[in-house]
Amino acid sequence: MAGSSFGKIFRVTTWGESHGKALGVVIDGCPAGLPLSEDDIIPYMQRRRPGQSDFSTKRNESGVFEGRTTGTPISIMIKNSDQHSGDYSEIASCYRPGHADYTFDKKYGFRDHRGGGRSSGRETAARVAAGAVAAKLLSCLGIRCFAYTLSIGDVKAEDINMDEVFENLLYMPDNKAAKRAAALIEEAKANEDSVGGIIECRIEGVPAGLGEPVFDKLSAELAKAVMSIGAVKGFEIGEGFNAAGLKGHENNDAFIIKNGSITKETNHSGGILGGISDGSPIVFRAAVKPTASIAQPQRTVTRDGVEKNLEIKGRHDPVIVPRAVCVVECMADLVIADALLSNMSSRMEDVISFYKGE
Amino acid sequence: MAGSSFGKIFRVTTWGESHGKALGVVIDGCPAGLPLSEDDIIPYMQRRRPGQSDFSTKRNESGVFEGRTTGTPISIMIKNSDQHSGDYSEIASCYRPGHADYTFDKKYGFRDHRGGGRSSGRETAARVAAGAVAAKLLSCLGIRCFAYTLSIGDVKAEDINMDEVFENLLYMPDNKAAKRAAALIEEAKANEDSVGGIIECRIEGVPAGLGEPVFDKLSAELAKAVMSIGAVKGFEIGEGFNAAGLKGHENNDAFIIKNGSITKETNHSGGILGGISDGSPIVFRAAVKPTASIAQPQRTVTRDGVEKNLEIKGRHDPVIVPRAVCVVECMADLVIADALLSNMSSRMEDVISFYKGE
Amino acid sequence: MAGSSFGKIFRVTTWGESHGKALGVVIDGCPAGLPLSEDDIIPYMQRRRPGQSDFSTKRNESGVFEGRTTGTPISIMIKNSDQHSGDYSEIASCYRPGHADYTFDKKYGFRDHRGGGRSSGRETAARVAAGAVAAKLLSCLGIRCFAYTLSIGDVKAEDINMDEVFENLLYMPDNKAAKRAAALIEEAKANEDSVGGIIECRIEGVPAGLGEPVFDKLSAELAKAVMSIGAVKGFEIGEGFNAAGLKGHENNDAFIIKNGSITKETNHSGGILGGISDGSPIVFRAAVKPTASIAQPQRTVTRDGVEKNLEIKGRHDPVIVPRAVCVVECMADLVIADALLSNMSSRMEDVISFYKGE
Amino acid sequence: MAGSSFGKIFRVTTWGESHGKALGVVIDGCPAGLPLSEDDIIPYMQRRRPGQSDFSTKRNESGVFEGRTTGTPISIMIKNSDQHSGDYSEIASCYRPGHADYTFDKKYGFRDHRGGGRSSGRETAARVAAGAVAAKLLSCLGIRCFAYTLSIGDVKAEDINMDEVFENLLYMPDNKAAKRAAALIEEAKANEDSVGGIIECRIEGVPAGLGEPVFDKLSAELAKAVMSIGAVKGFEIGEGFNAAGLKGHENNDAFIIKNGSITKETNHSGGILGGISDGSPIVFRAAVKPTASIAQPQRTVTRDGVEKNLEIKGRHDPVIVPRAVCVVECMADLVIADALLSNMSSRMEDVISFYKGE
Repeated sequence: MAGSSFGKIFRVTTWGESHGKALGVVIDGCPAGLPLSEDDIIPYMQRRRPGQSDFSTKRNESGVFEGRTTGTPISIMIKNSDQHSGDYSEIASCYRPGHADYTFDKKYGFRDHRGGGRSSGRETAARVAAGAVAAKLLSCLGIRCFAYTLSIGDVKAEDINMDEVFENLLYMPDNKAAKRAAALIEEAKANEDSVGGIIECRIEGVPAGLGEPVFDKLSAELAKAVMSIGAVKGFEIGEGFNAAGLKGHENNDAFIIKNGSITKETNHSGGILGGISDGSPIVFRAAVKPTASIAQPQRTVTRDGVEKNLEIKGRHDPVIVPRAVCVVECMADLVIADALLSNMSSRMEDVISFYKGE
Repeated sequence: MAGSSFGKIFRVTTWGESHGKALGVVIDGCPAGLPLSEDDIIPYMQRRRPGQSDFSTKRNESGVFEGRTTGTPISIMIKNSDQHSGDYSEIASCYRPGHADYTFDKKYGFRDHRGGGRSSGRETAARVAAGAVAAKLLSCLGIRCFAYTLSIGDVKAEDINMDEVFENLLYMPDNKAAKRAAALIEEAKANEDSVGGIIECRIEGVPAGLGEPVFDKLSAELAKAVMSIGAVKGFEIGEGFNAAGLKGHENNDAFIIKNGSITKETNHSGGILGGISDGSPIVFRAAVKPTASIAQPQRTVTRDGVEKNLEIKGRHDPVIVPRAVCVVECMADLVIADALLSNMSSRMEDVISFYKGE
Repeated sequence: MAGSSFGKIFRVTTWGESHGKALGVVIDGCPAGLPLSEDDIIPYMQRRRPGQSDFSTKRNESGVFEGRTTGTPISIMIKNSDQHSGDYSEIASCYRPGHADYTFDKKYGFRDHRGGGRSSGRETAARVAAGAVAAKLLSCLGIRCFAYTLSIGDVKAEDINMDEVFENLLYMPDNKAAKRAAALIEEAKANEDSVGGIIECRIEGVPAGLGEPVFDKLSAELAKAVMSIGAVKGFEIGEGFNAAGLKGHENNDAFIIKNGSITKETNHSGGILGGISDGSPIVFRAAVKPTASIAQPQRTVTRDGVEKNLEIKGRHDPVIVPRAVCVVECMADLVIADALLSNMSSRMEDVISFYKGE
Repeated sequence: MAGSSFGKIFRVTTWGESHGKALGVVIDGCPAGLPLSEDDIIPYMQRRRPGQSDFSTKRNESGVFEGRTTGTPISIMIKNSDQHSGDYSEIASCYRPGHADYTFDKKYGFRDHRGGGRSSGRETAARVAAGAVAAKLLSCLGIRCFAYTLSIGDVKAEDINMDEVFENLLYMPDNKAAKRAAALIEEAKANEDSVGGIIECRIEGVPAGLGEPVFDKLSAELAKAVMSIGAVKGFEIGEGFNAAGLKGHENNDAFIIKNGSITKETNHSGGILGGISDGSPIVFRAAVKPTASIAQPQRTVTRDGVEKNLEIKGRHDPVIVPRAVCVVECMADLVIADALLSNMSSRMEDVISFYKGE
């Protein structure tokens, strides 16, 4: 209920705040026999935050035996090597605009004011560790979630080339746009300001038939997963908001036969029809707001209800989009892994075949 | 798991297909003592589909006694008075573009081909009945969800006047725009085509502090709820996708003191910060695709894998946005009702006060 | 949360009170393609209450198409043909000993006093309808749950012969004991008193490997399922309470090879080891208390806190054990069906085989 | 689904095997503001296993700030200081009678053979740590769960004196019986055998009105909780199995007025009527089987299907009942804490009062 868990069968539970000594995740429901080691997780942690290598599955060794998952919970702990021991007295006593300080106080009556607590971006490290395990599972089935930056502020990737995604620090599939975006970020930084952007995720290899037809549509689960990332303010799939302006004959995808198989001629649907995967690549986008922490003076109020001007000291990242790319992708990994496992009992013939080998 | 239920404490389960004799919903977890009668539900059913009055709570009488809810499940059944007894042989044998025919077949191995089954718009009648109960609960707390049409195709409401929403059949807060939109719809109809649109929902009176900080953010729950409606392809809250292009100083909302209380000067956040309600109105939008059923010929394939041209006979509604308005609003009602009930045990002081009266 | 649902994948939600016009159940998560008709359900309803035939799946027709389940929710409604229109004023104003009148008032603030509401035995009709569907599923896999009366009051079945279960009205596997038990029941009736008993359930054909190792042990799920039946006060599996007095060498079951397969020489475990089925028959027992409704005068208090003598008028059944037999069996059907569907994603090799056909 | 979590609002997730370097638990949904420190947990860990002090909440510091819970997940890790590095080759290749070796292999395809993995008694350490937090919450509301040993083998506590529970190592409320039980245990040890017993738990201070009326009866939740402990084979509440032999007039509890309040004259119900607490002490019992690990030779089979004689080397505890006492109590703590938090939204008047302060 308190919402630190995600998924039904492949179910993850995260814990830890931005300023504790560690944070982590417990993964329950990962099938037994999946080959898994730290090497599957480290690259994801590094994509989320280059230079970080301070996590540890080895220490706990739960849920993995002789290099394979055992079917029991996998616990991953990530040490918080860079806890700031700074002065939080100013933040403690007032509410930062765009942050969850005020809402945490209203919900819980008080808060751990050292950084953002559970609403900090640090929390996403646990999501990424779990997503890496889900991605490993997907890779065994030929499925891959892949996210990248579509725009930073008003700079859009236009000449899309997926090979370029890892060639720039912004994970944009357009090196030239990335250069312009980097300049925009520098400008925002100089102005003690910040910028947002749009992340796109493409999921290849998903078989048709995943997802549930009513409340738990695959598109609805993806929306929840992605909207649960701190700074995300919008989600769309396929044509998304653009579909609102299309005509039916423009938005419908014709079914055709290609190489002897049924497929769609176009993919306006974004790979999901009626909440169930249709076999085409699943394509969705997430809108990320500009970083809430900016150095320029802002108006706010104290816990005691006095208006004041706030200047948030310290180093601020003028954009979180590049780090969020991996988080978006990992949330997609979690959704697809869960949908795959949930779907195995949809047909009686499969249940009979499973248990009777017929 | 099969996804016909929604909510944690205020939990609804829907059943029934488009061509059965009835469909319905069971509401579990509604607090005891809420005054409730058919008169609370009928107006919602009529908004969803003017002229319809063929539902019945009275017949079952479960969960209500002497005009108040008893705390036990409320079962609502809606008769399907207009089941078509038409010829579905053509639809049975091929896949309609933009519909879930293909994906149902891939998931379940076969399908009830008489109309859309569970993926039909008929299913939303059960959501609306449940939403009406949730809305009654919210009204006791001074909370109101209110949805309306923001655009149809490329026609946007511009001169917003909420009083006009019920003055036109499209539920647009701009009668002039509604007139232009009506013309657009007529044109689409003449062309055997269809149009989509954008629905906005505004929730007033929500106290600060609702929602959970990590995976079950209030914004994430709303996103899932709204994206679970058949034709919805996008969701955004507050500035939404627009936030991706704003600067931090533009998107952050300053906290101020107004009438002695803490509030926000602006509402770019859309009423939710860090996944928890911030006391401002919650404002979100949903993108609705153009109706998939269009009369003009479309290319598709048969279940046997043969390409063919399909002409879907019968009456087609060239736009579903106006009927979806009420559905979007009702999903919001369900989310907020559930969040309210879930939030009561967030603080130990409240738990102690509840049980010890201190 | 309000607890009207049971199961994870094969999930049932019941609704309706003893004095409404109908009650029912919605089954979500039944695999598509299971052959199902009213004829599968009627015999169960009749076992629960001979002579009753007033239920209807046909009317709703949800979740079944052309004789097979579609994978979408199955809704079953049971008409309450014998609602008493009697005088409940005395019951309304005081608390019947052994009933839930007092506890409902304390929980909800008031109650539907016409009979037992949700705590009435009527509610179990919905469980039996759902259990019949689960039993049909199990029958496709060669699994059968079978419950019978082990004792009534102090009369025990001793010369066990399963063929005799349906030869007496008490469902005892010992016709002679059944005759003595019938006399005991008559005596209780004459004394305006009641008796209880013990029900045993035997589940044959369950493959080894079902159940989860920690909190959701198969034995724990069975315990919850059976203890959720109104009058059940105890649950035990295999040796049960007797195991507390055994030595380790007496209670352990040796593994042996029989017909080339691993099996256990004895079945003290009752078919479950470490919470997971071990391939032997699952055998458990439930203790049923004597019917709380007795005609002889009892001391109680009114809602206003005044002590009084209560004589509950009307026809009282001096024993509910025979009718509870079918309910116990149906709860077992629900648990095993759910465990079977939940278990399909336990191994990665099975997941790969399912999706890649390798 | 994989069953490593327990509870709905106060929800715990355990992880770790008997032979990993650590195990632990994440508690989600504990209300904010509960005073909590290691000193609340250590005594419970010591009761479960005297001499053990190798756990740590301090290290992680999640979910607690300045001595109070923050409402976010509490993560507790317990180091496994005594991992045996012994020779498990014999256990690895065959199935120990009475253990979960065989069933784990059948479920997962292989297992971590170093001890019992998740089915080991070590796993209960995490339950006890979580239970200690729940007990702290209960103590703020004047509620206490208290478990003790009722019998060891055929030696029963007869002259019950609760003051004596902590005066003997077996936690029996009868020092004389404890002496005889100790002799019985010594005898079993000398015979390379083991004994079981019965644990009783008494819960005082629970307000009337907790629990849900149908599937999630408070008695059913307690049954599941207790039956989920490895060696427990039976559960009963109030008169339990004895009720099956009583007459209605013997088993019903008269309601009376005492000190101006409604109460029951007797407590045959064990404190729960119709699944909802009735205000009397809740009293239940659990049957614990004799330890499965015994040194005397036993017949079993290898993984390859060859019969063999097995002698399990190493130190074996001839009785686990005393250590299970604390585990039973902690599971009760978890159930009651969850029921308390779940019950706060049962009445509309309470919801209105909570949000509108009326």
